[in-house]
Amino acid sequence: MDLKGRRYILTIACPDRVGLVAAVSGFLAEHGGWIMEANQHSDHGSSSFFMRDEILAESLPFDLAEFKERFKPIAQRFDMRWRIEDSSVKKRLVVLVSRQDHCLSDLLHRWRNQDFAFDIPAVISNHEDFRSFVEWHGIPFIHVPVSAGNKDEAFRRILDIYRESKGDAMILARYMQVLPGWLCEELPGQILNIHHSFLPSFAGAKPYHQAYERGVKLIGATCHYVTAQLDEGPIIEQDVIRIDHGDSPEDLVRHGRDIEKSVLARGVRWHVENRILLNGHRTVVFK
Amino acid sequence: MDLKGRRYILTIACPDRVGLVAAVSGFLAEHGGWIMEANQHSDHGSSSFFMRDEILAESLPFDLAEFKERFKPIAQRFDMRWRIEDSSVKKRLVVLVSRQDHCLSDLLHRWRNQDFAFDIPAVISNHEDFRSFVEWHGIPFIHVPVSAGNKDEAFRRILDIYRESKGDAMILARYMQVLPGWLCEELPGQILNIHHSFLPSFAGAKPYHQAYERGVKLIGATCHYVTAQLDEGPIIEQDVIRIDHGDSPEDLVRHGRDIEKSVLARGVRWHVENRILLNGHRTVVFK
Amino acid sequence: MDLKGRRYILTIACPDRVGLVAAVSGFLAEHGGWIMEANQHSDHGSSSFFMRDEILAESLPFDLAEFKERFKPIAQRFDMRWRIEDSSVKKRLVVLVSRQDHCLSDLLHRWRNQDFAFDIPAVISNHEDFRSFVEWHGIPFIHVPVSAGNKDEAFRRILDIYRESKGDAMILARYMQVLPGWLCEELPGQILNIHHSFLPSFAGAKPYHQAYERGVKLIGATCHYVTAQLDEGPIIEQDVIRIDHGDSPEDLVRHGRDIEKSVLARGVRWHVENRILLNGHRTVVFK
Amino acid sequence: MDLKGRRYILTIACPDRVGLVAAVSGFLAEHGGWIMEANQHSDHGSSSFFMRDEILAESLPFDLAEFKERFKPIAQRFDMRWRIEDSSVKKRLVVLVSRQDHCLSDLLHRWRNQDFAFDIPAVISNHEDFRSFVEWHGIPFIHVPVSAGNKDEAFRRILDIYRESKGDAMILARYMQVLPGWLCEELPGQILNIHHSFLPSFAGAKPYHQAYERGVKLIGATCHYVTAQLDEGPIIEQDVIRIDHGDSPEDLVRHGRDIEKSVLARGVRWHVENRILLNGHRTVVFK
Repeated sequence: MDLKGRRYILTIACPDRVGLVAAVSGFLAEHGGWIMEANQHSDHGSSSFFMRDEILAESLPFDLAEFKERFKPIAQRFDMRWRIEDSSVKKRLVVLVSRQDHCLSDLLHRWRNQDFAFDIPAVISNHEDFRSFVEWHGIPFIHVPVSAGNKDEAFRRILDIYRESKGDAMILARYMQVLPGWLCEELPGQILNIHHSFLPSFAGAKPYHQAYERGVKLIGATCHYVTAQLDEGPIIEQDVIRIDHGDSPEDLVRHGRDIEKSVLARGVRWHVENRILLNGHRTVVFK
Repeated sequence: MDLKGRRYILTIACPDRVGLVAAVSGFLAEHGGWIMEANQHSDHGSSSFFMRDEILAESLPFDLAEFKERFKPIAQRFDMRWRIEDSSVKKRLVVLVSRQDHCLSDLLHRWRNQDFAFDIPAVISNHEDFRSFVEWHGIPFIHVPVSAGNKDEAFRRILDIYRESKGDAMILARYMQVLPGWLCEELPGQILNIHHSFLPSFAGAKPYHQAYERGVKLIGATCHYVTAQLDEGPIIEQDVIRIDHGDSPEDLVRHGRDIEKSVLARGVRWHVENRILLNGHRTVVFK
Repeated sequence: MDLKGRRYILTIACPDRVGLVAAVSGFLAEHGGWIMEANQHSDHGSSSFFMRDEILAESLPFDLAEFKERFKPIAQRFDMRWRIEDSSVKKRLVVLVSRQDHCLSDLLHRWRNQDFAFDIPAVISNHEDFRSFVEWHGIPFIHVPVSAGNKDEAFRRILDIYRESKGDAMILARYMQVLPGWLCEELPGQILNIHHSFLPSFAGAKPYHQAYERGVKLIGATCHYVTAQLDEGPIIEQDVIRIDHGDSPEDLVRHGRDIEKSVLARGVRWHVENRILLNGHRTVVFK
Repeated sequence: MDLKGRRYILTIACPDRVGLVAAVSGFLAEHGGWIMEANQHSDHGSSSFFMRDEILAESLPFDLAEFKERFKPIAQRFDMRWRIEDSSVKKRLVVLVSRQDHCLSDLLHRWRNQDFAFDIPAVISNHEDFRSFVEWHGIPFIHVPVSAGNKDEAFRRILDIYRESKGDAMILARYMQVLPGWLCEELPGQILNIHHSFLPSFAGAKPYHQAYERGVKLIGATCHYVTAQLDEGPIIEQDVIRIDHGDSPEDLVRHGRDIEKSVLARGVRWHVENRILLNGHRTVVFK
């Protein structure tokens, strides 16, 4: 069998009980399913169990639809929230950007390079700056201006584009508009943001200037799911970089860009590969 | 059940085959075994499978001896190298040191504090320097001088002390003598060393001075199992620290001490908790 | 001349003006003063200038008292806050601790080892736990119980001990009592604390539990000067360590200890070597 | 005066002597020169002194040519290797690339964004892959095929292009050809390479595969000046990233790309800003 072949990615979250792993792995073994990568986590605080398996598709005698049908009784028995997806079906990421393109440019390179498997059906911006660069990639660039007066309408349009693009996730790649609560609730666990601070420090506006004023010795960035509570969504990934007294606020902004793009890229990859499971307002990340 | 209670730690390495996880988890589920922590790894290059389970002892209807008896047929069927241990039985670490005590002092603090569960039945040194400090802890300090002439005899004595102390592992906490090949072969996977460089860079003597001469921008330390091939054993853990042009070789030595002690401490903890499995000359570490 | 010999450490903070460096370096050159290490920083925001020179004492034809006398006119001309100290006079650190000794133990090892030059004339604690360990070092251990009723009196006593010990700095090595405002104001820039979070995140009590609840992916520690505003003093040093979903609050506490002790040790060394200059509520650190 | 205005960047390397800083800063002060940023380093091992000053151009009563004329006697007196450059004159970087474009793409973004001040007069490649992407930027893309038979001729052509482009530095952005010794000697301290390992570990071919085989726990990248000795030139910057047993050689390659591009970008910026001084086969980097 081709070990690099197509895989089914099965993710499960459910109450922790004896026999869970046996039931799932027994089901897979019974049908010859070859587990290429496996992760489990028991959260003793909430008595929850989380699991992710990558199974070689070719090793199973049935397709995804039949897998789902056959697995359903087990899922019901253990009260699972679960999904299974085919690794060869690329996730479609709609990218939103404003006037800074370091994250956009980084994601476009990873797409050109297929660093990991994903597609970008559209880039949406409230400015025109990056039209030419995006269109060079053969990707539609859609200008949706946002103003105090048209906010709701603008985001209705953005949601329409997302639906028409058959988006699987919306990536806020330094998109400097606050999303309306109804949109966050419409797409739970589908919107990823990069915040330019090490949350919960310096939530809100101008975090690098806040960091400079406070005199911290490291600055960071946070990739998180967007919820109706601004800067409060479940954290996916964070990283920091060392600064010192010689760095001006402008230097922090410059250093920060490097952290922002790598933190967002890691978060996006994990999301695309179904490595992130929600555990209340925290995340389980099976790297 | 008391979730903080005694656990059985089961580790398995074997050829990768369909049904492995099902067999092990099925066995546990059948007897009500509650898996508190689980890790698996498939090495596709070598077609090997590695697994570690922490099972709540109280959840099983039999003791460790009976577990071993009942598990044997499964182990044989899948050609497993395996072990199971009781987390409440503390591992006994015999610590060897020469004239620098930063790693020794750090380990003694972790023992006083029971940072993780272990005992130190003896500290052996080729110098007298740290007798009083070690003895304050109520731990025997044994001076075994090593010279060009008595090397073999000295290490026979060290092995005797290790056996009499019922040692589970020998920790070279900046022990500046090369162990004879026969001793390394006598205790495979039981001797941990901290090397004061980021191996394979700067193997051999005076690594910080080598690093200074080469002008590297980060220095590191490596915790590894000791084999008959000097500085070539399987790597358990590594870390680095940033230096710059202002740092003299003496500064590198000073910075390096901080990395050495934290890297050794992590390696020792993982060894004590059976988190390290050998995969040829590499390691699988289930953190 | 012996390049490892005694040095004078000159630190200066003043309004930034043309001719400053020329005046200081001209003064030194005129008397043959050999600068071993030099650092300067211009803060353009506040138009302030900061400088630190290490001068080989032997290269100058006069002693420290005469240096001060001769330098005074320059200092006045440029409106300097300045000090000069002899590197061979060890700073005296009074250490305060409660019931966790990882920072204390680390500092005591650095003192035994003279990792950098300092003395510990006294260890003060509101508990008796570490008396024997401290006294083994030949260092006085003084138990000063603190309760809701005797707080002011207790800290008067602590200040008395500090004065009698001729303390140069007070190190709060996980001392779990809030210092009264009057004490902070009595010893400005002399009290160093280690806070067990990456400030300004998780100020206040139980920061690791707060961090766990928020689901951050890195935890940190902060060494700062203590002011009357709790957890708000100028930050000296910070560092972080990566955690993941598998870490319980207890694991965070354990990982955090390693960061706390290294961050505190760096802050203490920089303070002892006069590497930290205050710039309003921020610090300039000449590493 | 406009503090963000044009600056002169003065760098000096010379034997360490009393009076050096006084002479330079006295000269500047005499003419009203405002030092915006200053760094000094004394290497006690080699008795060498290194210095970098950023001076506000507007604060001086003369231009660069006259500065050079007037400074010459001081430079001669102290036997200085020195240069002074105008920060408003952008350095011209000729970028060489083969078939991996992560570093190229990153540098092009930094150029579009003017992350720091530089120009790219030409991109040279031994393959055609990135012509369209480079040309979209309005930058000439020149294909110079290299084969075993035409190597010398190809590199003569590359040197010609570099000269005609008035190149200030040649950036090997994952250029997979070994430069001939004569070219390295023709452009000392002008060619920067990114090596995909933490040198001196894993010099030579396929470093990530070497790293995988050895089982290291961190992988790295090294930015260095190119000399006739392959992978032996002075190191400018290095960084590492943590990996684990779950990472295949392909994963290491993928993780490594992120480190390579950030390490190269830092090295290039420091070179462009004249922050790197050679100290024998090591570097002094004034960040």
